[in-house]
Amino acid sequence: MSKTLELAIDLLKRRSLTPEDADCQEAMIARLEPLGFKIERMRFGEVDNFYARRGTSGPLIVFAGHTDVVPTGPLDQWHTPPFEPTIKDGMLYARGAADMKTSLAAFITSIEEFIAENPDHPGSIGLLITSDEEGIAVEGTVKVVEALQARGETFDYCIVGEPTSNKFVGDMIKNGRRGSLSGALTVRGIQGHIAYPHLVKNPIHLVAPAIKDMVETTWDNGNEYFPPTSWQISNMNGGTGATNVVPGEVEILFNFRYCPEVDGQGSSEASLRSRVHAILDKHALDYVLEWDHNQSYITPRGKLVEAISQAIEKSYGISPELSTTGGTSDGRFIADICKEVIEFGPLNATIHKLNECVAVADIEPLKETYKRTMELLLLK
Amino acid sequence: MSKTLELAIDLLKRRSLTPEDADCQEAMIARLEPLGFKIERMRFGEVDNFYARRGTSGPLIVFAGHTDVVPTGPLDQWHTPPFEPTIKDGMLYARGAADMKTSLAAFITSIEEFIAENPDHPGSIGLLITSDEEGIAVEGTVKVVEALQARGETFDYCIVGEPTSNKFVGDMIKNGRRGSLSGALTVRGIQGHIAYPHLVKNPIHLVAPAIKDMVETTWDNGNEYFPPTSWQISNMNGGTGATNVVPGEVEILFNFRYCPEVDGQGSSEASLRSRVHAILDKHALDYVLEWDHNQSYITPRGKLVEAISQAIEKSYGISPELSTTGGTSDGRFIADICKEVIEFGPLNATIHKLNECVAVADIEPLKETYKRTMELLLLK
Repeated sequence: MSKTLELAIDLLKRRSLTPEDADCQEAMIARLEPLGFKIERMRFGEVDNFYARRGTSGPLIVFAGHTDVVPTGPLDQWHTPPFEPTIKDGMLYARGAADMKTSLAAFITSIEEFIAENPDHPGSIGLLITSDEEGIAVEGTVKVVEALQARGETFDYCIVGEPTSNKFVGDMIKNGRRGSLSGALTVRGIQGHIAYPHLVKNPIHLVAPAIKDMVETTWDNGNEYFPPTSWQISNMNGGTGATNVVPGEVEILFNFRYCPEVDGQGSSEASLRSRVHAILDKHALDYVLEWDHNQSYITPRGKLVEAISQAIEKSYGISPELSTTGGTSDGRFIADICKEVIEFGPLNATIHKLNECVAVADIEPLKETYKRTMELLLLK
Repeated sequence: MSKTLELAIDLLKRRSLTPEDADCQEAMIARLEPLGFKIERMRFGEVDNFYARRGTSGPLIVFAGHTDVVPTGPLDQWHTPPFEPTIKDGMLYARGAADMKTSLAAFITSIEEFIAENPDHPGSIGLLITSDEEGIAVEGTVKVVEALQARGETFDYCIVGEPTSNKFVGDMIKNGRRGSLSGALTVRGIQGHIAYPHLVKNPIHLVAPAIKDMVETTWDNGNEYFPPTSWQISNMNGGTGATNVVPGEVEILFNFRYCPEVDGQGSSEASLRSRVHAILDKHALDYVLEWDHNQSYITPRGKLVEAISQAIEKSYGISPELSTTGGTSDGRFIADICKEVIEFGPLNATIHKLNECVAVADIEPLKETYKRTMELLLLK
């Protein structure tokens, strides 16, 4: 059994249901301290995090990830117990196998090998590990990054071990995520009996043309890294339940997944907000609108993308596609202190599902990929 | 105390909360039988109704009304107990005082006086009384009318004793009601994660332009008797509650209050239905639409409107306005067997409210109005 597989199994046995860490981090720290890493445990609220660094010079390459896992779902639908890692037909089954304890194990063993071979490597190696990524994610990476930012610490490169592979391991790395901008819109009218239409102002009638305009708006055309910005209503509710009453207001929840600006192509949070207000105001609506924003990030082609792409090609024999699709990730927080952030890890086919798994044969190449990336960035 | 006031008080003491009759109808029948009325008690389900007729020749004038009343609301907010009729400062307070036991009493006493003066009057006098008007109204007037229709009985004139007066008693009679056509519309899309817009079809986005078209449609321009047809959404609900999911369907409840056709002006149930389908189909929506219809009725100017207008002018000194506004009434059912139906009764200011009342001074003129209308229609 490889050291990476051994460590992955050790981590997978720990029931680290988000935001619990279940001592996964201490198991990792026990491997890092002997290598000369300086460890900073950073507990925020109920959440364990740590930041580790070996070396003081640049460039600094940081591996980032989370020890927490999502709930198992119905246990009787798992073929093997989710916290008893089991190898069957070449697959390693356990909750967190793909998302993302195998990546954590590969971080550690790739670093161990790299340091064994290059004990006096130039630059620095770091780890930023949280147990609050799968939950509300407010006491985790975002807080660690704030603490580092406060003392002026920045990263040169960061690899987040999220399971980004799609059909084959190595076919996709994420080099950014769209921004997510949500609005809670209340449009007000005047309530009244449906038989007296001259006394009412129907907010659903008033808002419909504005929705039509929003749907027909081309917010941008996307850019090299992102598809065009998308606007969607998730919820719309108006009415008292009574069928003879025109409601006094209607509530609409909507969301932008937006293409951030690169080379003048794309949208910004501010531009989207002001364009929405312009449409609502054009329709002379009486409304209240509350906003919520998850920032975007983008890592253009550069040294990190180049290095990990080469490493993947060597490990898996395929050339990865750059992608910015899918939900948000902790990458967006790290981008505040790091110009080049990418995400790369196992197949995402079974994540958050029953019988989560990774192929045992994919594990050693993952460790090799992380190790070779360090070699390309720190030694060349 | 006049006989009308005395009978009104007797009826108001009976707790006939819809659909209870509380023997109001037997109290009326006890007065009608000695006058030579043939009584048909018609109990449908839990609901008491009766039909009474004196005479066999035409024309037949029928007084129609209901003995049931709406709930009292909070008793501690009534100044006097709602089922203990109380005269105070010239007003008679009780639940049902305006809607419509005073009218029922005036029906009886006007008929008593008319027959005393004209024992061998030409034509016939009838009464159609239900105790299911304020509730769901399915075992009441509609069933009695069906029974009469089945045996070929028709009315020439019908006066419904609903409280139609607005600011002064006598200022308004209703000679029709708009139709009410309701739709329960479900528009289907394809549900999915908001981050993958190419995989979803957002039903709220799809229906918004159709709503805009409906709102902008001029359904008709009204006619001599009715305001233009009005279309209103009462309820619109779509969304799973989750803010990152595009819903698979949206439900919309809407209602037409429509101007029925008179002399080619106005709309019909069928035309409105087909125009709605045309708009939904134009937008290529995948939808299910269920309809519900309350028919309209209209009594053009003619002998009945003329007679009751004259009678009102003599009793109250004002000339009534014809109106078709407001909700639906049992008049719509009676119109199936009667070409001329109007509604006339007390002030509607306090109906369905706390401290419902009528002015004592308005009661004798109401009886006089009904009596004079009989004189004009049966004797002239």
